[in-house]
Amino acid sequence: MLVPLLSRIDHVGIACRDLETAIERYATFGLQVVSLEVNEEQGVREAMLQVGGTGPGTSEGGRPGYVQLLEPLGPDTPVGRFLARRGEGLHHVGYGVDDIAAALATLGGTGVRLLDERPRHGSMGASIAFLHPADLGGVLTELVQMAGPA
Amino acid sequence: MLVPLLSRIDHVGIACRDLETAIERYATFGLQVVSLEVNEEQGVREAMLQVGGTGPGTSEGGRPGYVQLLEPLGPDTPVGRFLARRGEGLHHVGYGVDDIAAALATLGGTGVRLLDERPRHGSMGASIAFLHPADLGGVLTELVQMAGPA
Repeated sequence: MLVPLLSRIDHVGIACRDLETAIERYATFGLQVVSLEVNEEQGVREAMLQVGGTGPGTSEGGRPGYVQLLEPLGPDTPVGRFLARRGEGLHHVGYGVDDIAAALATLGGTGVRLLDERPRHGSMGASIAFLHPADLGGVLTELVQMAGPA
Repeated sequence: MLVPLLSRIDHVGIACRDLETAIERYATFGLQVVSLEVNEEQGVREAMLQVGGTGPGTSEGGRPGYVQLLEPLGPDTPVGRFLARRGEGLHHVGYGVDDIAAALATLGGTGVRLLDERPRHGSMGASIAFLHPADLGGVLTELVQMAGPA
């Protein structure tokens, strides 16, 4: 049995056509935006809405999770193509890892294809990498190592 | 601003054709099955795989999250129809709530349609209710009140 690589569910990524509409929808649940960024590399404008916890990375209840709302910067982007093909909805799931480089090295030896051989820049300063959904039952899966001290 | 209704990401629900294959896949990440049940009402055989934490509901790092793997009991079930329409992949997201009856009462007044007016039986003795994806940007959304003392 491997040591668990995944320390928590970091976020669920949700594709939407209009970010402000989606943010308003989640305000119904009392969820608030803690980060709003454009990620040109991934072709998205995105909002992170905190679920639980009392502050990013600091809570007696553990690290919070996030709803990550993703609006494509254009139709010819991964999220733009996802919307054209499947419509709005769940896009991916992100799991927290303590050491993303070590996690990628471990997974690389198991036959799970890595969409990112090396970590990239993700939301809120995190280091991230995506794994191929075809090797994970159709689920686009992201590893997330949060920024700053663990 | 409403008080946050959602206390954490409880689980991601993943539709699969074969439960044992899916369980094996997540063993790659070191995730282990903590509950295996048949839910006739929902037409699924399901496994809960714990992510993080040191035990169900008890951890200095907060409550764990779960990957919930769902195999349909037949083609004419919600998950069976989902597989026929969309293939394997992310099916829904479940959020923890402290008081599911109060959460349903609050949401019922906001225009979000409730698929379950009253809580039903979910995994591991939890009380659950689903919200309509059409009102939530295409995301089938579940509320989960864990069994036992909070």
